[in-house]
Amino acid sequence: MGRAAVLGAGSWGTAFAKVLADAGTDVTLWARRTEVAEAISTDHVNRFYLDGVDLPSTLKATSDYREALDGASVVVLAVPSQSLRENLAVWAPSIGADATMLSLAKGIESGTLMRMSEVIVEVTGADPSRVAVLSGPNLAKEIAVGQPAATVIACTDSDRALELQKACATGYFRPYTNSDVVGCEIGGACKNVIALACGMASGIGLGENTSASIITRGLAEMIRLGVALGANPATLAGLAGVGDLVATCSSPLSRNRTFGAHLGAGGDMASAQAATNGQVAEGVKSCTSVRALALRHGVEMPLTDAVHRVCHEGMSVREAVGLLLGRRVKPE
Amino acid sequence: MGRAAVLGAGSWGTAFAKVLADAGTDVTLWARRTEVAEAISTDHVNRFYLDGVDLPSTLKATSDYREALDGASVVVLAVPSQSLRENLAVWAPSIGADATMLSLAKGIESGTLMRMSEVIVEVTGADPSRVAVLSGPNLAKEIAVGQPAATVIACTDSDRALELQKACATGYFRPYTNSDVVGCEIGGACKNVIALACGMASGIGLGENTSASIITRGLAEMIRLGVALGANPATLAGLAGVGDLVATCSSPLSRNRTFGAHLGAGGDMASAQAATNGQVAEGVKSCTSVRALALRHGVEMPLTDAVHRVCHEGMSVREAVGLLLGRRVKPE
Repeated sequence: MGRAAVLGAGSWGTAFAKVLADAGTDVTLWARRTEVAEAISTDHVNRFYLDGVDLPSTLKATSDYREALDGASVVVLAVPSQSLRENLAVWAPSIGADATMLSLAKGIESGTLMRMSEVIVEVTGADPSRVAVLSGPNLAKEIAVGQPAATVIACTDSDRALELQKACATGYFRPYTNSDVVGCEIGGACKNVIALACGMASGIGLGENTSASIITRGLAEMIRLGVALGANPATLAGLAGVGDLVATCSSPLSRNRTFGAHLGAGGDMASAQAATNGQVAEGVKSCTSVRALALRHGVEMPLTDAVHRVCHEGMSVREAVGLLLGRRVKPE
Repeated sequence: MGRAAVLGAGSWGTAFAKVLADAGTDVTLWARRTEVAEAISTDHVNRFYLDGVDLPSTLKATSDYREALDGASVVVLAVPSQSLRENLAVWAPSIGADATMLSLAKGIESGTLMRMSEVIVEVTGADPSRVAVLSGPNLAKEIAVGQPAATVIACTDSDRALELQKACATGYFRPYTNSDVVGCEIGGACKNVIALACGMASGIGLGENTSASIITRGLAEMIRLGVALGANPATLAGLAGVGDLVATCSSPLSRNRTFGAHLGAGGDMASAQAATNGQVAEGVKSCTSVRALALRHGVEMPLTDAVHRVCHEGMSVREAVGLLLGRRVKPE
């Protein structure tokens, strides 16, 4: 087993680097800011993005990406989806010619409508068999404190999937391998949009039946889109689909759910952003890309469309809910 | 559209009778106890099982089942699954020869391992095309106050499914038709067992990742069992599977979840029962029947097996979780 580099020291990048270290993998975490890297190396904490968690003393950190990538046979990409391309363009020359690249980013690139693995292949020129994705019900803060979680590692090259599985399997983190990269990525990209919808419904006072119905109908949309793109529907009925969707839609920690709840309670985009630490929830951007991808493939996604209309076309949450409930009754 | 009789005035029977009345259907609710029937007829409340909800003045109630069944073309069976057979034996002679029977009961009969629709066919001698089931994310208390919810009505006879759909479609209740009776029944029977497991995990302090993983792996078990019995996996990915499962596992109102949480927190069966109004949660009985059904069909259901061991063989919740997490890593 070779060395691993984790590029990006946000909450999930840091938590996953901890998982690798706990699994006995030699891992270096790259942080953009020197003070973040230094605090991790010397104090074994990341108080900026994962406060209150003791990191293993075996986890090294650096703000020099060349140092992190030097000799790494596994390169974990843990930056936000819309900034993956520009970051990767800088890193690519330093990535080993046979290194496996593992994407933790979830989203569809705006404009190009590419999945993250497609962006990676395009920017690095790597064979698609060298690109893997990890997705599942993985709230970073819970994993960071050692709570048990399962996940999916998808790669078309099963040997690389097994290598990654071995690199991160610990007593509390249980990775399953899968060959369906597309399915895992579609699940990860769509779930934030559905979490926004769940938040909106909760914000206007609707309960668990509505939330469960939104999750179910959202899953159906996600499966339709995935199948149109060549995914296996079973992947979306699994940890990277249902699992991630349920965790994201249920957790009070989810930024997308919280953002939607503020809109549902009558707030506007600016106040919802203020309520989520000044950050726009990921689903606000992805609803537009996912909707465009669905249109391109002739797939009906009424929930995603409604979220897009609320976030970008001024529709009220109440109108959107009325629109969805008012659809004609028909076979499931 | 003919008259409807709802037999059983528990919380779900009462809430569904309200839905029928709100949809404009002529409906009579049968309650075993005279005082329950009288309070519904005269005060338009069921303070015993659905307190705080104003029932429509058009909803009639009686404690005489013959009166409820007289002229009813739709007979809704809303008694607990393990008492359906004995009740139905009494009612059967009064049920019209062409009436559609709609089961709201969720479970597998102990001993015979029959689904509720099979019990209905055996006891009444009806053709299976006359038997329908209703299942979905339908927490009774939310529906009773008019919160929007979707559901599935399954019947092999599509004309009867459409008739039932029309009888209960309202602005807040959205029924989808389906022909997969088996799938709907398996979803309904398995979800309480999975909710017990979610409660147990929550009771020992595990978070949303674990809960979402349990829901996902529970869904996988449910799909395996359903497919072995002839169900369409898409039904279990829909409202009667994922939808009902998510609502039941997420809701703090769920008796099964609460019961499991008490066990997880270190309580024994007696104290868990005391904490849920003295009633044993449905999943405690169904885990044994579902497990037996799985064994008969050679289907692996490790979560259901673990719940059975905790409830009936003295295994601790902690041992059961260790057993599940300790399983060898493998492909999804």
